[in-house]
Amino acid sequence: MPQLIRSWVESANTPDTDFPLNNLPYGVFSRDGIGPRCGVAIGDYILDAATLEAEGLVSFGGALQTGTWNAFMAQGNAKWVSLRGALTKLLAEGSAAQEELGALLIAQEDAILHMPFAVCEYTDFYSSRHHAFNVGSMFRDPENALPPNWLHIPIGYNGRASSIVVSGTPITRPMGQLKGPNEEVPRFGPSQRFDIELEIGAIVGQPSSGPIDVGQAFENIFGYVLLNDWSARDIQAWEYQPLGPFQSKATATTISPWIVTAAALEPFRTTGPEREKPLLPYLAEPGPMNYDIALEVALTPEGGRETVLSRTNFREMYYSTAQQLAHHTSSGCPMRVGDLLGSGTISGASKDSRGSLLEISWGGKEPVEIDGGSRSFVEDGDTMTLRGHAQGNGYRIGFGECTGKLQPAATGA
Amino acid sequence: MPQLIRSWVESANTPDTDFPLNNLPYGVFSRDGIGPRCGVAIGDYILDAATLEAEGLVSFGGALQTGTWNAFMAQGNAKWVSLRGALTKLLAEGSAAQEELGALLIAQEDAILHMPFAVCEYTDFYSSRHHAFNVGSMFRDPENALPPNWLHIPIGYNGRASSIVVSGTPITRPMGQLKGPNEEVPRFGPSQRFDIELEIGAIVGQPSSGPIDVGQAFENIFGYVLLNDWSARDIQAWEYQPLGPFQSKATATTISPWIVTAAALEPFRTTGPEREKPLLPYLAEPGPMNYDIALEVALTPEGGRETVLSRTNFREMYYSTAQQLAHHTSSGCPMRVGDLLGSGTISGASKDSRGSLLEISWGGKEPVEIDGGSRSFVEDGDTMTLRGHAQGNGYRIGFGECTGKLQPAATGA
Repeated sequence: MPQLIRSWVESANTPDTDFPLNNLPYGVFSRDGIGPRCGVAIGDYILDAATLEAEGLVSFGGALQTGTWNAFMAQGNAKWVSLRGALTKLLAEGSAAQEELGALLIAQEDAILHMPFAVCEYTDFYSSRHHAFNVGSMFRDPENALPPNWLHIPIGYNGRASSIVVSGTPITRPMGQLKGPNEEVPRFGPSQRFDIELEIGAIVGQPSSGPIDVGQAFENIFGYVLLNDWSARDIQAWEYQPLGPFQSKATATTISPWIVTAAALEPFRTTGPEREKPLLPYLAEPGPMNYDIALEVALTPEGGRETVLSRTNFREMYYSTAQQLAHHTSSGCPMRVGDLLGSGTISGASKDSRGSLLEISWGGKEPVEIDGGSRSFVEDGDTMTLRGHAQGNGYRIGFGECTGKLQPAATGA
Repeated sequence: MPQLIRSWVESANTPDTDFPLNNLPYGVFSRDGIGPRCGVAIGDYILDAATLEAEGLVSFGGALQTGTWNAFMAQGNAKWVSLRGALTKLLAEGSAAQEELGALLIAQEDAILHMPFAVCEYTDFYSSRHHAFNVGSMFRDPENALPPNWLHIPIGYNGRASSIVVSGTPITRPMGQLKGPNEEVPRFGPSQRFDIELEIGAIVGQPSSGPIDVGQAFENIFGYVLLNDWSARDIQAWEYQPLGPFQSKATATTISPWIVTAAALEPFRTTGPEREKPLLPYLAEPGPMNYDIALEVALTPEGGRETVLSRTNFREMYYSTAQQLAHHTSSGCPMRVGDLLGSGTISGASKDSRGSLLEISWGGKEPVEIDGGSRSFVEDGDTMTLRGHAQGNGYRIGFGECTGKLQPAATGA
């Protein structure tokens, strides 16, 4: 386990910051007088990467002077290594550039964070065994909760890229077709079972035009974000057969504002769970492919205090990002820079480690206690927050918060 | 029914051309020495729209001088009307511009056609009652072939925009996970049940950020293309439960190269089928919302002659594009310029009006005769071609061909 690399930015050296020098995540920020531009989080600050390049301290063909990280991602791994190396030197304790760079540091509290990249397409997987088992038990047959293909395929479906928003964006409760088991015909109204899904999103940083070998797949992944795939369970239950979730997942998906690079997470690679059935060779991992990332879900009611509903870990996933990407391209499906792959809801075995309210409240039958009340699903005014970090020796690689507050539906109630 | 508007381009005045002056579809072409640029089909020619704008004969802020029609679409309906009006005048018999424009006409046989627009996201619906019934009978329960939600919801799923290619692009037979009903475990190999789907794709030409009223939805549709959603039925059968089709639909989707505008098709608006169950108000159409478009599917084996396998009509669809767009946005899902909505496979009631080989051969049990043999699914070397047109009085609004030839799988056989 590597040690903390100390920075001359003092707030980056504290054990509880999400953004030590070992992290260096990429985001897009604006503040009074300057428009959205590339930045790098360091301690309590953001380093203005656009100005860094404009002043000639680094050079990436102008890619850092755009309003997204896509152009930089497209430059490929050698450039990724080069920028990370340069930033590490510039921000390290004792750097000769300290005085010059001081002017490029913006306090995070003064900045507005934007989408860190343009999402090309969005795929959502279903790779947590506990989640798939729990949902299968509730939506289908408890005796055969895991679908027959689940232990062979990293099941996924295409989501809706246009609905992805950055942390902090208010979410509006969706309207949709609803039909309870005892209702004769469907009706149209606000979802009454609006939920969250705790996920990690992997960002494809290199294009491809044919199948990607599972052993090579990580080379195409630029980094990761926390991801909350807001889900209307009642709309989902009525619509999802036979072609899968559609409007139930199209209202919004929130991501955390900082792209934590694969390079920063590399020391936290770990093995996944044992295989219950052998995988076909195109999915067989050549080495440890999971990440040890502690995760939590919290709910804060309007005017109330936060309750942590769940704590789990990304290492529990049955299928890794590399396996997902290998499967996703197995048919020849082209991938592009900015494609986003959601891990699927991350649930552990115990009730307090589940990644959705659907599971935590077992479909509403066992409401969970929160400050001043209880919850089966998200209520208007609730703020839902995801957090995550990999724990190093005296430092952590954090993601920043992934948060969103639910507004009432636009019509009816 | 309007009459043919005669053009000084003589080949545009013949009753069997796809591209009379009444049509004016938009594409992107290149030829020796000039790169991909916007063009308009007229008879046997393409009018170089990029040069038309560069020379000042029309003015759309440079939008026609790009390599896609997206920038023009984004300018909105008033500009759409303006360009169509200008082109109609310039190309009409007796136009004073005839001499000047002659130099801007490129023979279609000398040009290469490219993707006419950048596909933002791709959604595939399932809106033909006969198709849904046929597939339900084969994949699920013949006694309950139509899913319970089907008569209430224009069911759809998100497809993969990165796999959309223009007519003429070779298609490679995909590899994937396969598991027959009598096999214990899945295997990985080339699809043996590779199929086509006859569809029409609607192109969203205006952005939106909330629910769209069904009566307003057509105003956001710029135009239409023929669409072949290549489908690996064996991969689909094993993967699609519970989250829908994924790799089975991700190899390729072919579209015809010309965007036939909603304006050109407006005279062919017609009523859809009667409702078997009342629709919820958000889907109730205020007037005729289908189009009368004759369609056909043809197969040409390597070195053989073409056989037309199926003839049907777009007017048979149970749900229209307007209903699909109203449903698609009902949850608040944002739409963007360049979003593509596939109608779903268009099948009629009779065997020779079905829009997929799966249906035509009834899952391979009743192979269809072709020149020199028979087919259950697409074989290597087969060229599959879709054609479509709306029939006017002495003219037709055609789409041009949507064609693709199947190449063997990259590995194994």
